[in-house]
Amino acid sequence: MKVDVEKVKSFLIKLMLRDGADKYQSEIFINALIWSDQIGRPTHGLWRYPVYYKRFSLGLIKCPCRLEYEVVASAIGIVDGGHGFGHYVGHEATHQAMKLAKKFGVGVVGVRNSNHFGVGAYYVNQVAENDMIGIAVSNSTPRMAPHGGVKPVFGTNPFAFGAPRHSENSIIIDMATSASSGANIMRENNKLSEGIGIDSNGKPITDPKRINDGALLPMAGPKGYGLALMVEILGGVLTQAGISHGVKSMFKNFEDNSCTGHFFIAIDIEKMMPMSVYYDRIESLIATIKASSEGFSNKEVRIPGEKRWYSYQKSLKEGIELEQGTIEALESLGRSANAAVPW
Amino acid sequence: MKVDVEKVKSFLIKLMLRDGADKYQSEIFINALIWSDQIGRPTHGLWRYPVYYKRFSLGLIKCPCRLEYEVVASAIGIVDGGHGFGHYVGHEATHQAMKLAKKFGVGVVGVRNSNHFGVGAYYVNQVAENDMIGIAVSNSTPRMAPHGGVKPVFGTNPFAFGAPRHSENSIIIDMATSASSGANIMRENNKLSEGIGIDSNGKPITDPKRINDGALLPMAGPKGYGLALMVEILGGVLTQAGISHGVKSMFKNFEDNSCTGHFFIAIDIEKMMPMSVYYDRIESLIATIKASSEGFSNKEVRIPGEKRWYSYQKSLKEGIELEQGTIEALESLGRSANAAVPW
Repeated sequence: MKVDVEKVKSFLIKLMLRDGADKYQSEIFINALIWSDQIGRPTHGLWRYPVYYKRFSLGLIKCPCRLEYEVVASAIGIVDGGHGFGHYVGHEATHQAMKLAKKFGVGVVGVRNSNHFGVGAYYVNQVAENDMIGIAVSNSTPRMAPHGGVKPVFGTNPFAFGAPRHSENSIIIDMATSASSGANIMRENNKLSEGIGIDSNGKPITDPKRINDGALLPMAGPKGYGLALMVEILGGVLTQAGISHGVKSMFKNFEDNSCTGHFFIAIDIEKMMPMSVYYDRIESLIATIKASSEGFSNKEVRIPGEKRWYSYQKSLKEGIELEQGTIEALESLGRSANAAVPW
Repeated sequence: MKVDVEKVKSFLIKLMLRDGADKYQSEIFINALIWSDQIGRPTHGLWRYPVYYKRFSLGLIKCPCRLEYEVVASAIGIVDGGHGFGHYVGHEATHQAMKLAKKFGVGVVGVRNSNHFGVGAYYVNQVAENDMIGIAVSNSTPRMAPHGGVKPVFGTNPFAFGAPRHSENSIIIDMATSASSGANIMRENNKLSEGIGIDSNGKPITDPKRINDGALLPMAGPKGYGLALMVEILGGVLTQAGISHGVKSMFKNFEDNSCTGHFFIAIDIEKMMPMSVYYDRIESLIATIKASSEGFSNKEVRIPGEKRWYSYQKSLKEGIELEQGTIEALESLGRSANAAVPW
């Protein structure tokens, strides 16, 4: 079912407020979730709302959280997220990184005691909208074995990069460092190709229903393993967040805080050249990329982010698509809070 | 043939000096080349010396180069490499990034007017040896098509990351963003698997001899494309170096400067926590990684960098292996300079 973005937003915020959540923090959380649906990433959208809500109700996610921010070196800050919504904590950390970048050219902010922050695209896009280069990573609960290993050590440990364009449609690179993202597999009905996951004996899994029996595999073998390790070092080791099994599953563990860690870098482009020069340079690169399929294919080469912006524009006209399961969960939450669903 | 590291080093530096090269800059160049052979990366080792030497002789690589360094924001510097050896220019830029990091916590240095800098591992290892986190990227002459494209737009655009361990054997992640590095393919005799390269019509190439007919493909499809684009933005767009075809081939173009760009980030770990805490955290992560194959395989899971350090230790005892072609090229250079080869 398609629902209107603004209506579902205000419905969900009402729900949060009735349960004593902080208005500003809830708004950022809900906005980030819905933005995911808008850019065509429903795996990180409202589909997850019920489990976030459950964790909030159990006190495992705090809203309001008491976020603490400390500048530990001129251009490095550390955020203790106080177990708040990852989206809110990540949003605040991103903005602190941009403040540092405005002052010093580059800003780095590490985050501990946070939760699943949704899509990295959300953060790097905000940085890009402010004419900066953004990098955002997060560790997550172990689901992926290192190359050569059998047991899960890393989360799908996403890596995101954003760079502005003259239009509002920033370049957004956002990838799981696993061959496939966990959320995609959980929603998959088709047989998996080999190289996605292994069972607890290290044998390939092709049935998506069995994916939780063992481990996901890194993208491109040792390369994805290397990138996942980098994300764990930046997001986990350097921030004093949970490392590996120290990060708890949002879907399976309802006793502990998640202790997720994030890491953000912002680089102020204007310190390096006038924005007009930057825009010329980036558009000339994009033109070369676009021309690389000319004469061979009638499909244009896509710039990372393009598909997301197409979905986003579409969502503004048509609303976002909610799955039956999400709709039922929201209706049930609405009933128990005496709040009318907006459909 | 195995040759003694120190002997071949002094032979090569002698050669450079006879041709009017700067001693300090040559030493760094030669050291970096030989370090590549030592860590088991002969594709970026002395095998390349003859072509670097040719470019130097033609004045396309300058030694001495007039390197210019400008701090453009507190924690961001720009190096104009003056078309010097990429290894020397990269080395200087890395050290400037570390200086900025010592002061501000994080340091960023972009480089333009440089040349092929060899392995990114060389730079991030130096950063890690100084108890910092290092990131090093470089763009390179177009050989790789973007995902969905047919014509080359990107180089193999390497990405490197380094992090210290308590031992001297740093974690080193260093990867081409293409499915296979160009240098590996040029030296390959076996049939290539699909997904490595395409011909000029976009059809898969499996014959390594034909790899220059078309384009390399990115690792992991859209993900490698995204990473290659990120490297091009950091190393090319932001530094005002050449972008895409603005970077000239070291093997094919003997008329123009290469105009390669690099980008370095250093983060001073001690600003975030005492080194003893960092070491405990990183070793606990490494122990979890190592344990992930226990009971399933008698092969230990390797930490990125481990294989390199094994080769390095071996080279200290046994010397480095030079291929027949490299030996002949060096003997010929020796003869024309009246310098005796050290074998």
